[in-house]
This record gives sequence, C-alpha cells and structure tokens, in this order.
Amino acid sequence: MTAPTWHYENFDPTGSAIGYRVTRKLDEVQSPFQKIEIFETTDWGNLMLIDGAVMLTTRDNFLYHEMMSHPALFTHADPKRVVIIGGGDCGTLREVLKHPGVESAVQCDIDEQVTRMAEKWFAELCESNADPRAQLLFDDGVAYMANCAAGSVDVVIVDSTDPVGPAEGLFNKAFYESCFRALKDDGILVQQSESPLALLGLIKEMRAEMAKAGFGVFKTLPFPQPCYPTGWWSCTLARKPGADAAFGFREDAARGKAFPTRYYSAGVHRGALATPPFVAEALGG
Amino acid sequence: MTAPTWHYENFDPTGSAIGYRVTRKLDEVQSPFQKIEIFETTDWGNLMLIDGAVMLTTRDNFLYHEMMSHPALFTHADPKRVVIIGGGDCGTLREVLKHPGVESAVQCDIDEQVTRMAEKWFAELCESNADPRAQLLFDDGVAYMANCAAGSVDVVIVDSTDPVGPAEGLFNKAFYESCFRALKDDGILVQQSESPLALLGLIKEMRAEMAKAGFGVFKTLPFPQPCYPTGWWSCTLARKPGADAAFGFREDAARGKAFPTRYYSAGVHRGALATPPFVAEALGG
Repeated sequence: MTAPTWHYENFDPTGSAIGYRVTRKLDEVQSPFQKIEIFETTDWGNLMLIDGAVMLTTRDNFLYHEMMSHPALFTHADPKRVVIIGGGDCGTLREVLKHPGVESAVQCDIDEQVTRMAEKWFAELCESNADPRAQLLFDDGVAYMANCAAGSVDVVIVDSTDPVGPAEGLFNKAFYESCFRALKDDGILVQQSESPLALLGLIKEMRAEMAKAGFGVFKTLPFPQPCYPTGWWSCTLARKPGADAAFGFREDAARGKAFPTRYYSAGVHRGALATPPFVAEALGG
Repeated sequence: MTAPTWHYENFDPTGSAIGYRVTRKLDEVQSPFQKIEIFETTDWGNLMLIDGAVMLTTRDNFLYHEMMSHPALFTHADPKRVVIIGGGDCGTLREVLKHPGVESAVQCDIDEQVTRMAEKWFAELCESNADPRAQLLFDDGVAYMANCAAGSVDVVIVDSTDPVGPAEGLFNKAFYESCFRALKDDGILVQQSESPLALLGLIKEMRAEMAKAGFGVFKTLPFPQPCYPTGWWSCTLARKPGADAAFGFREDAARGKAFPTRYYSAGVHRGALATPPFVAEALGG
C-alpha cells in the first residue's frame, strides 16, 4: 500500500483546476481515439480520465446523468424513441430506461473501450445495458445522426466530451441540422453545455449553431457537478420553433414517478428552470 | 512578468482539491489569528487565502454573499436588526444593506486584517462599509453574541471559516444558545454549512447542536460556489419552534426588489428550497 497522491486536472479555458486524492491506478487502455485511465480514490470511488480530463467518479456521476436525461424526458409529452450520442459510460442510458414509456434507446459512442472500461469499473452504470429496449452502437455519432430517418426521434441527448478532439464535430451547425431533421416536430435536443459560470461564451456559441440549424427555443439548466471544471455544469435543451409549451414539464408525472432518483426531483427541475440573472443576461434568456 | 503557476488547495476531509492559475502574490500579512495571502489569478481576479484555504475570488464571491443574505432576509417578515459574525471581507454586509428596511447591521469579525485586506484588494465588497447603518467590530463573535441583549436581533448570519481554528467556537451548542437568546421569536439564524455533497455529516452535526440550543426547524439551501471544496456549498437556516411559516418567503418582495443581484432571484430562492432527494434523506428534510 503506497501513500495516496493528488491527481490534478488543470483546465486551461477556465484557469482553474480540480483534483482528487488517489490511491492507485487500476487500469489503462489506449483506444484508437483516446487514452482511458481508471484511478482508485480515497473518497470518490473510481475515477475515469480520458486524455487526462476527468470524465466521472463513482460518487458524483448521478448528478450529471440524472440531469442529462430526466428534465428532457419529463418535458417531452411522451418520449418513446431516444438517441444518446456519446454517453459510452452508459449512465445516461440507465436513467433514460427508467422511463417505462421509452420503447427504444440507442446509444452511439465512437469508442467501444469507454463502455468496456465502464462495465469493468462502473458496473452499476451498465446495469440496464441488457434491457431489450437498449441498443449499443460503437460508431461515429455524426454519421449516425446524418443517416437517421427524418422525424423518427423524440429526444436526442448529446452526452459528449468537451468540444475538442473526437467530440469536436458534435458542437456545430452540420451536426445540429442532422439532429433537427431526425427529431419529430415536438422533439427535444439535449446537449451537455459546460460551466454556466466560466464558459458562458461557449454556451452562447452552441446556441447560435443550434439556431442556424433551425432550432427556435433554448433553455440552459444548471446543476452541480464537482468533478467538472468550476463544479457547476449545465445541459442545454433546444426545441423547434413553435414547439408547444417549450420548457414547461410534466410536473405531476415527475412528482409521481415510480423510479428513484438521488438529485432529480420535480422541485429541483423547477429550480433549474429559474435561470440566475447573470446567466439570463449573458444568454438573453 | 513570470509565467503563471498553479496554486492548489488540497482539502483533506473531502479528498478533493481546487486550484487556480496564479500570476503573482500581491500581498501577505500574518495577523494575530491567521495568515492572509492575496494572489492575482489569470481568470478569477484576486484570490484570498487564509492559512492556505481559499476564502474568495473576485469572480465568484457573489454566489456565496448573495445566498448567505437574501434568502434569510426575504424569509423574515421585516428584518430590521442584523448581526453578521465573521464576514470580514464585508461582502455579506454589502448584500444585507441592499435591503432598505434594515436599520442596523453589525459585522463582528475577530480579525481586523481580513477587512483591511478586503478594502485593499476587494474594494467593491467594502463599498457599503461607510453606510450609517453599518457597524464594524473587530472582536470575538462568541463573546459578542453572549453579550447581545435578549430578543434584540432579527437575523444572525454566521459567515465563518471552516469549523477549525478561530471559527471552531462558532459551530457548537453554547454559541447557538447565545444566538437563540439574542434572536426575537421570529428571528432567523443563518450558518454557512459546507458542501451538501461531501460534508453532509457535518451539516447533520451542526443541526443537532442548533437543536440542542433550542432551534426547532431547519432548512439547508444549496448553491454553486466554485472556489470551495466540491464547488457546491450551502447555508443552513434555523428558526425557533413554532415560527410561523418557517421557510416560506416573501416571494413577491423578492421578485419586485429594487436592487440588482447576479445569482439570487425569487425563482433561484424557490429552487434552493427544493432539497434534492439524497440530501433530504441524509438530513431528514
């Protein structure tokens, strides 16, 4: 047993860093796309890094996975067909499949090794992978969305890494146009949208690209996520112009849901819709 | 101009760390109580450390200061007399004095040097120090509360450092008894209450000490605070048994307030009252 050491991720765009006390490296693989490492920590369970960037920890990933899925699924009137682009750790898929009305959930991540590492070191996130409604593809998400039948999808969740490297193509007009085409008229696009404190400029650019692709209304929901830069993160929901009610949600259904959640609740959802003044000012709503 | 370096604070109780990219040390003083250092950062303005622990940055302190003051002041029916224990950077005092109904705000911090450094390096936080309603004392907060006239205060805000070192006496039954005595029947005690993710045990102990001192109802409000461990922080409000309405708040007044806030709003306040399920489970509400 060696003494614990500290592992830091310096995040250049925000000039801030996050660190964990780690006891040992458990695993490592170099995939065709990126380097994936697993560490054991003293307080956060297992920790996954991709190319040195913190992806998730055992202890706090529920915040992100619940907020990437349940707000959109309780906003859509009756989500049946869901597509997850990225999301290779399978945590978002697990949350999506908690909704009994979902008939099909496709997860398309370019890197099979992320899922293999998740199965091994974050097995609890993969517990719904064998659900007959789930389909796991290891393929290019940009191509998958481009080839998706028009008007066939209710919710697209873009659960990607940062907009550099393999995920760069998931943050631009061309990709969002594919999403727009694949979504039904009342469909919802969800994109992880970085820190609402330090990266508001990026959220603004992302919304501008979505608007160029045809999306008409946007809502950015903040939530805590200790393992990501600044500890405060967000997802952005986009709908087509004229989508009824836009971001009102099925509050009674959320309150009466038959499955447990740890962070998400109807009240937390409503709270996340109350955009703080400085965010509203920067984003125009 | 030397190259920027990274300054990390390793936080042992949570096994996690926060870091900033700093360009230079601007100032340093060893007071009778603690060592205070000021750094210049690349992205967060100025940074104050006390005994190596991050206290605040120019960029993100509004989150903490607004949430330590406005929820309590909009919960109380008519707050006139406010006491701040700690709070030497004067940011909470500034927020409190934005409420036109406040007639007197006493700030009692044991360490005058914290305020002197704030005046120099965080001047914007001190802009209300000359308000005739403000009184700045540099004295022992435990003694101040013990000597406070019974039933004379509407809101006590404990804006302290962590429960070690100079602030240790601000987290126990004896101190809370003094607060209880000083508060009117409809008074409110506010205590900064650490991370609602990683330090739930501490919040539970704090509430137990408050209960021993006579307080009857409690509410923990979470908020983002990137510069503190895990990036997610909280304040806990306590009221005497039988306090009418407990944590309902003057929502119309909050919505119609005549002063600007950057994070706080009526909607954000309401959102913070929606305790996430895992927090409610750990704290019993």
